[in-house]
Amino acid sequence: MSLSLYEVTIPTFLLSLRNLKAILEKAVAHAEARKFDPNVFVSMRLYPDMLPLNRQVQIASDAAKGAAARLSGTEPPKFEDTETTMPELLARVNKTIDYLQSFKPEQFGGDDSRTVTIKTPRATLNFKAADFVRHWALPNFFFHVTTTYALLRHGGVEIGKTDYLGQVPQV
Amino acid sequence: MSLSLYEVTIPTFLLSLRNLKAILEKAVAHAEARKFDPNVFVSMRLYPDMLPLNRQVQIASDAAKGAAARLSGTEPPKFEDTETTMPELLARVNKTIDYLQSFKPEQFGGDDSRTVTIKTPRATLNFKAADFVRHWALPNFFFHVTTTYALLRHGGVEIGKTDYLGQVPQV
Repeated sequence: MSLSLYEVTIPTFLLSLRNLKAILEKAVAHAEARKFDPNVFVSMRLYPDMLPLNRQVQIASDAAKGAAARLSGTEPPKFEDTETTMPELLARVNKTIDYLQSFKPEQFGGDDSRTVTIKTPRATLNFKAADFVRHWALPNFFFHVTTTYALLRHGGVEIGKTDYLGQVPQV
Repeated sequence: MSLSLYEVTIPTFLLSLRNLKAILEKAVAHAEARKFDPNVFVSMRLYPDMLPLNRQVQIASDAAKGAAARLSGTEPPKFEDTETTMPELLARVNKTIDYLQSFKPEQFGGDDSRTVTIKTPRATLNFKAADFVRHWALPNFFFHVTTTYALLRHGGVEIGKTDYLGQVPQV
């Protein structure tokens, strides 16, 4: 059996972004219960030259929407990366979920040899679509979701891996 | 186009585990250059009740070998989780790579409706094979690789996301 490029990206991103929302909401509830400002989480870093929590969420969002746009041959919407509060980050995740839900599986068709091009600050990279999905889009997306989780866990929020994995559909 | 369950798991795990090796090797070199024992990394945690680095590497290994075994209907080898040094963790990653390389794509055949069963300390879970791959095996694997990265980055090792993503094959 096999998974189409749609099937291995869109449902995967959607479940994980919904879990990310629940994790961010737990962080807000944690701060409120302890009477500190939930928005202090937004600028937390694991090391001084690592990106803070808001950038982790923004890049997870960009990784998902960028993958959907590239695989469907469309232009991704530009999100302005202006979020500085937890409610704004939750809205960013919601906006990303709405965008991903707008795709239909048939938009991800196309032949096996098509190329996906990524421009990074250092280079222009050309991948086969399948390699882009398994070696770039998915690892990059999970990297930023997990780092968000790690930041909140490091910050004392009571979450566990079941929050990260969420409710996986069962038979 | 689509990816078989083999194509979306084995090459993905292999590239990521090779990147993990390179990251662990950079941590060893970092410690040696600063004249401290590289094995102090092994017990580092991001929070007192989070798992330490050696458990993160062991569980990443287990996630990969467990997925390969379940998808091929075979029994995974038992690795004893006795690693307490960086060289032992590197050997664990190598052993996992060797095991994953022993699989052939045709061993991952089987029909779309087959069920994968996971026993956790809390429950027995039954997933469709496709859901097991996209919502369990991949997110779980990347969670532990990323947490290992985060621990080392938090510990001052000079690594970046290009070390995590590694050399993705280009067209």
